[in-house]
Formats: sequence, C-alpha cells, structure tokens
Amino acid sequence: MEAPTPDEPVTVAAADWPRASADPRYRAAVVDLLGALAYGELAAFERLAEDAKLAPTVTDKAALARMAAAEFHHFEQLTERLRQIDEDPVTAMEPFAAPLEEFHRLTAPSDWLEGLVKAYVGDAIAADFYREVASRLDTDTRSLVLGVLDDTGHASFAVEKVRSAIEAEPRVGGRLALWARRLMGEALSQAQRVVADRDALSTMLVGGVADGFDLAEIGRMFSRITEAHTKRMAALGLSA
Amino acid sequence: MEAPTPDEPVTVAAADWPRASADPRYRAAVVDLLGALAYGELAAFERLAEDAKLAPTVTDKAALARMAAAEFHHFEQLTERLRQIDEDPVTAMEPFAAPLEEFHRLTAPSDWLEGLVKAYVGDAIAADFYREVASRLDTDTRSLVLGVLDDTGHASFAVEKVRSAIEAEPRVGGRLALWARRLMGEALSQAQRVVADRDALSTMLVGGVADGFDLAEIGRMFSRITEAHTKRMAALGLSA
Repeated sequence: MEAPTPDEPVTVAAADWPRASADPRYRAAVVDLLGALAYGELAAFERLAEDAKLAPTVTDKAALARMAAAEFHHFEQLTERLRQIDEDPVTAMEPFAAPLEEFHRLTAPSDWLEGLVKAYVGDAIAADFYREVASRLDTDTRSLVLGVLDDTGHASFAVEKVRSAIEAEPRVGGRLALWARRLMGEALSQAQRVVADRDALSTMLVGGVADGFDLAEIGRMFSRITEAHTKRMAALGLSA
Repeated sequence: MEAPTPDEPVTVAAADWPRASADPRYRAAVVDLLGALAYGELAAFERLAEDAKLAPTVTDKAALARMAAAEFHHFEQLTERLRQIDEDPVTAMEPFAAPLEEFHRLTAPSDWLEGLVKAYVGDAIAADFYREVASRLDTDTRSLVLGVLDDTGHASFAVEKVRSAIEAEPRVGGRLALWARRLMGEALSQAQRVVADRDALSTMLVGGVADGFDLAEIGRMFSRITEAHTKRMAALGLSA
C-alpha cells in the first residue's frame, strides 16, 4: 500500500464531536471533563447559596444568590450535554464528587469576606481552567465550554467589596491573603488527586498521546493557573 | 352639580398600573405586596439551597437546586418591577424580612423528607396566596404575579418522593403529618403578624375600603388557604 494515507488524522481541535468522539479515549476524557465541570458547578451553587447567608445586606445576599443561580444554569447545560451524548450525568459526575466536596469542606469560609474571596478566586480559577482546556477540545465541546465560561464573571462585584474592606481596615488584607493562598493550595491538592486518578482526562488536558500523559506539562498548566491567581490577588491588594 | 359623576371610579381589577396607582393607598399596598413576595422568594431560595445539602442523591440535589434557582428568578422579576415603579427593593422588602426569617428559623427541616414536604407545602401555599391576591390587583401587577405563579410547581416531584417514602415505611407518615401541620401553623402566625402591621396591604388583600379592613374577610382568606392545604396533605397520604 503505497497510496497516501487516506485517514490523515485531523487534530481534535479541528474536528467536531461526531468525528473526535470516534476515538474512545477522547470520548472518555470529554465525559470525565463534563462530569467534573458539572459537579463543580453544582457544588459551587451550594456553597455560594450557603455563603449568601453571611451577607451583611439584602443587596449582597441577592448578589451571591445571583452567582449561585448562574452556576446552577451551567450545571444544567453541562448535564444536558452529557444526556445528548448518551451518558448518564450522575455516573459521569461520580468520580469527582469526593475531591470537590473535600475541597469545599476544607475551605468553608468563616465570614462574609472569606466567602467573597472564595467566590472570586473560584470563578477566576475556573475561567482559567476552562480557557486552558478549550484549545484541546473538539469544536462542539469547545463551544459549550466557552459558552459556560462566557457567562461567568459575576464575581467582579466581590473585588470592589474586598478592596473597600481592606481600605477600611488594612489588617484584614493579611488575613485574606493567607486565606487566598490556602484556597489555591487546597484546589491544587484536589486537582492533583484527580490527575492521578483519571488517566484519560489528564492525557487530554495536556494534549498528550493516549498511551501516557506528560506529568511535566500538567505541572506547567497548574503553574500558569497559579501565576494568574497570584497576579489577581496582588491586584486585589492581597499579596499571595 | 347635577351632572353625572365624571370620574366614576374604575375597579382596580379593570385598571392598569398608571391609573390604579394614582391612589396612594393602593400604590403603598402594591409596594408592600411586591416587597413581601420578593423577600419571600429570596428566603425560599436560601432555604431550598440549604435543604439541597440533605439530598440523598445527586439527582435529588439537582432537583432542589433547580427549584431554588427558579425562586431566585422570581425574586429578580419582582425586584425589577419595584425598580420600574421607582421604589427601592430593599426598602420595600425590609418590613417582611423579620417575619419571613422567623418562619424559616422556626421550621428548619431536620431531614430530607421534611425539607421536601416544606418545599411542596411552601410552593402550594404561595401559589394559593398569589391566586387569592391576583383578583385584587391592577392588570399590570396581576400579570406579573400570575407570571411568577405560572413558573412554580417544580415541587411536584416532592409528592412522588414523599409518597414512596410513606409506602416504604408507613410510620413516616405520622411524623410528616405533624410536620406539615406545624408548617401551616407557623406560616399563619407570621402572616397574622404581617396583617397586624401593614394596614394598606391587609386592606387591599381583602378588597376592603382604604379606611379600614375587614378582619373577618382576612380570616376567611386564611381559612380557604388552610382548607386547600389540608386537602393536599390528605392526597399526599398525610392527614393534617
């Protein structure tokens, strides 16, 4: 057979879902990704709604409730997509429930400002991660992920609140800087647990080949996200 | 002046908002009503989101989160309407925060089934109340209130869950019947507090004249709502 290869592989990023998902490893990775994102949104909904109770005013309470409702709608989009591709959302989410619940258990805010910083940090890290992963995805999954991302950013009001709290009482800044560092630490520690457990997902995240993923590349992705976090915290008046 | 009265009053139910709100007492009553409904929706959001934590499965958790998000959207519609008529939503909600918080404080569910019964009962009582009040409203306010009502009914899934729990363990029924009775009792007790405090609202609720409201008619409205509740509870297998 000297004929030119008829099935020159198209890169995933240029393929649509029907084409890309013909590779069972890619399919498994996307199901993992959608499951992780969906459970993440549901858990974020719960925590934001709970933090709304700490709000000092009805306006603040409503702002946090609005963020929570937005997370819930992301959850619905992601689970709807899983159903469309004939996957059970509950089964897809299951592997990620424990690390996400553990993250939230270990980072329960003790007051309103900690809740705001967590909402802001969580939103921003999620957006960074969505952007990192989007380039690895087929066109259909990418537009879903970017659509969900597009709709975030409700947390920007948190910036203003945190800034004025630090201005009013600079000592607050030190405590919140430690808190932001702890949030990032716990997020990374749970993310590493997921990377270790979910081969297909991790391989896709770094654009690796299916028979092994590049741990160093995963490390670089985490570094980029951490650096972006550090810059954001500095802009917020929190040297992380 | 023997000429026919030129300003033969139009009944409120036939007037639109600009016409009906020319009466400052009617206007005050509607601002109260929208404030009470808005805070009620926000409080319901918070409690449903909190109850979602008690859910035994991710599917159940998502169902309660869906109800919570729907309540939040009602909250947004109601506060948006207050802004449209140049009223500050926070000021309008303020008088109703204490009775609503007190209601929820006194009726915190101790488990998933109590949470479901509360979601169902709360949804149904709210719908009954919206329907009772709708006929007293100007056409614009009525379409808002009926629109918000139209979007409820998410609680019906609760019926199925509660029924099957009682079938599996009939003893559960007795406990939940007591619980439903307590919910209704606390709701009425807070409602009576509101009636005593808010003259304009109470007067409008019974279609009374502005210089005094008919306490007996308020009592009859509460009776109708209580009867509907009792029938629903019986249908659910809970003799209230």
